[in-house]
Amino acid sequence: MTVLSSPRPDQTEGVLRLNQPLRLDSGQMLREVDIAYCTYGHLNADRSNAVLICHALTGDQYVASTNPTTGRPGWWPVMVGPGRTFDTDRYFIISTNVLGGCMGSTGPSSIDPDTGEPWGLSFPVITIADMARAQAMLISQLGVETLFCVAGGSMGGMQALEWARAYPDRMYACVLLATAPRHSAQNIAFHEVGRQAIMADPDWRGGDYAKLGVRPEKGLAVARMAAHITYLSEPALQRKFGRELQRDGLSWGFDADFQVESYLRHQGAAFVDRFDANSYLYITRALDYFDLAQSAGGRLADALSPAADVRFCVLSFSSDWLYPTSESRVIVRALNAAGARASFVEIESDKGHDAFLLDEPVMRDALNGFLDAAGAARGL
Amino acid sequence: MTVLSSPRPDQTEGVLRLNQPLRLDSGQMLREVDIAYCTYGHLNADRSNAVLICHALTGDQYVASTNPTTGRPGWWPVMVGPGRTFDTDRYFIISTNVLGGCMGSTGPSSIDPDTGEPWGLSFPVITIADMARAQAMLISQLGVETLFCVAGGSMGGMQALEWARAYPDRMYACVLLATAPRHSAQNIAFHEVGRQAIMADPDWRGGDYAKLGVRPEKGLAVARMAAHITYLSEPALQRKFGRELQRDGLSWGFDADFQVESYLRHQGAAFVDRFDANSYLYITRALDYFDLAQSAGGRLADALSPAADVRFCVLSFSSDWLYPTSESRVIVRALNAAGARASFVEIESDKGHDAFLLDEPVMRDALNGFLDAAGAARGL
Repeated sequence: MTVLSSPRPDQTEGVLRLNQPLRLDSGQMLREVDIAYCTYGHLNADRSNAVLICHALTGDQYVASTNPTTGRPGWWPVMVGPGRTFDTDRYFIISTNVLGGCMGSTGPSSIDPDTGEPWGLSFPVITIADMARAQAMLISQLGVETLFCVAGGSMGGMQALEWARAYPDRMYACVLLATAPRHSAQNIAFHEVGRQAIMADPDWRGGDYAKLGVRPEKGLAVARMAAHITYLSEPALQRKFGRELQRDGLSWGFDADFQVESYLRHQGAAFVDRFDANSYLYITRALDYFDLAQSAGGRLADALSPAADVRFCVLSFSSDWLYPTSESRVIVRALNAAGARASFVEIESDKGHDAFLLDEPVMRDALNGFLDAAGAARGL
Repeated sequence: MTVLSSPRPDQTEGVLRLNQPLRLDSGQMLREVDIAYCTYGHLNADRSNAVLICHALTGDQYVASTNPTTGRPGWWPVMVGPGRTFDTDRYFIISTNVLGGCMGSTGPSSIDPDTGEPWGLSFPVITIADMARAQAMLISQLGVETLFCVAGGSMGGMQALEWARAYPDRMYACVLLATAPRHSAQNIAFHEVGRQAIMADPDWRGGDYAKLGVRPEKGLAVARMAAHITYLSEPALQRKFGRELQRDGLSWGFDADFQVESYLRHQGAAFVDRFDANSYLYITRALDYFDLAQSAGGRLADALSPAADVRFCVLSFSSDWLYPTSESRVIVRALNAAGARASFVEIESDKGHDAFLLDEPVMRDALNGFLDAAGAARGL
C-alpha cells in the first residue's frame, strides 16, 4: 500500500508498507509496518545520488515541505532545497518518519492488526537500530541500494551512526550533527522526568487514552517544557529572555510573569497539537537504550570498524549541553581508530543544541565543503 | 505563643508568633505569622555570638537535629555542631523555617485566620525579602539585636544577601554559598516546569487540595525530579550512575531500567512525603522574583553599599550549573565596588550545586578560616 502525492513536481510524500515483517531488537516481530516518507529532487540514472535525512526526537518526514499538521514549512528548509546544502537539484533526498513516530509511520498510536485497536502500551519497545532497519527496508523498496549520504542531527545522528554500523556498504558518506554515541545518565534523567510527567497525567490511562477518546495533554506539555530547556543554552535563554516581564510589573501570582515562562508554556501547548504522548514515551526510550558500542562489547571503534570506507563529517556546537562536543570527540576518536575518514568541527555558537536546526553559516560552509568533496569523489 | 522543646540541653526548637503583622513586598499584610525555628548552642552574655543559618528551597529549620518528618539528622550536620565549622560550643546557631514553608512557619498550608481554612492559593505571594523580614523580627523577639553572621547556601544565600542589603547594621559577617544575586532565565524556566507539573496534577485542585483531603503527589514528584537534575553535575551523574542497569538486562518497557531512573523516582517519592506542593509553588516564585539589584535601580553595588562594613565570604563550586561561579563573581564584583571586604573561593568539585550540602574539605577550611578571623575581630 503506497499512497503517493506530489505537492510539487520534484517532491513526493507517501506511506509505504514494508514488504516483510520487521524483526526488532527486543526479539519481537512487527508483522505490518508502514513508513511515512517524503522525497525531494530526482533519483539519477545511476541511482547514486540518494541522501537519507534522519529526524530528531520530535521531528518528522517533512524536512523541507509544508507539515500538514502545523502548516509550517518543514523543520530544515534552510538546509534542504534547490541550491541549498542538501541541494534538491543534485540529490534525491529521502526522509522518513521514524518507526514509533506519529506522523504516519507505525507506532503506538497505530492500529494493532491483531486487535483492530490502537496499540498503546502493547506496542513493542523499539530501538534506534530498529528505526534504521525499517529505513533500510524502505530505501530498498524505493529502488535505492546505496545511499550517497545518511545525515542527521541529534537522534537523527544516532540513526546515521547506526546506519554506519549496520549498513556501511549501503552508504558513501555520513553526516553527524550535535549527536552522541550513547545516552548519558543526565540525558536519561531528563527523559525519565518527561515520561513520568506523561504517565502522571490521569488522561494517559495506562497508555490507552486513544481508545478512550482522551489525551494526556498536560503531562505531554510538561515533558516538552522540561526537554525544551535542554535544547537551548543558558546564555541564549538569558540573551533572548533574561528577566524580561510579559507585562509591566509582577502579577504577584502564578501567571506567566516572565517572558521565558510564557515562551515555555507556548512550547508545551504547541507541541501537544502535533505530537502523540505514547510516541514520546517510545522514542525517548529508544534514545535512552541507545549505546552504539554495546554491539561490540563496549568498544565503539569496533562497532564502527565496518564503516572504515565511509566518509564522515562530525559537527558539534560549543554551547550544546545535551550532546556536548565531548560526545562528538568520542565518535571522532572511534572513527579514527576504526580507520575511517572523519572531518570534525566544533562550531562556536551560543544557541545550544538546537543550533543544528538553525541557519548557521559555519555549519553550512562545513557541510557544503564536505558534500562537494564527497560528491566529486562519488562522481556526482 | 511560643512552643519550646529542648531535644538536647543545648538545643531548642519551637514556633514563635511574630509580635506584629508582617508587611509584604506585594503590599499585602499578614496579620498572624508563625515562624518555626531551632537553636543550637548558647547565646553568650554579650549576645554577640548568634549565627543565623538560612535554608535552601526544600530545607527547613532542622539544620543539625533530627527532622521529625524524615527521622534523619538534619540537612547540614557536617557543618553544624560541637567543634564543627559552625561550632555550637562557640556560636548560638539559629535556623528558621522560611515564611511560606511547610515545617511550622506560616505558609499556604497554614490556616487563614479569617476563614479557618488552609490558605491555599489565597496565601499572598512572598519574596526573599519577606522571608528575611520575618527572620529579622524573630531574631529581635529572641532577644538578639545583632548577628555575628548570616550564612546560607543557594536560596539560603539569597536570604543572607537580602539581610546584607536590608539589615547590614544587624550583622557582622555574611557567608554566601553557591548562590546568585538574581534568578536567570534558565533558573526561572526550570521552576516553571515544576510549577506546571504540580498545577497539571488534578489532585492539586486549584491549590485547594488540603481542604479536599487529597495531595498532588505525582505532580510534586515530577517537579522534584526535574529540579533534582539541576542540583547535580553531569559528570557526577555519569560517575555515580552512568548507564548502569537496575537488573540484568533491559526490561523492554517503561519500568526504571537504569539506576539513574530509579534514583530520580526515589527522589520524587521521598520528597512528597516531606514537602507541601503549594509551598513549592510559593517558594519557587519567591526565588524567581529575586533580583537584589532591583531595589537600587538595577545596580547591585548600590544595593549592597549599605553593607560596606560587613565581612563577606563567597564560595562557589566549579561544577554548579544552577548558580554557577559567574553568579558569585557578579556578587564579589559588586561587593568590591561597594567597598565591602569579600573573600572569594571557587571550589573545584564535580558534585554540582549540592556540593555545598556535603562534607567538602575545601569549603570547611575556607569557612573555618573566615569565621576564625571574623570571630577574632569580633572578640569571640
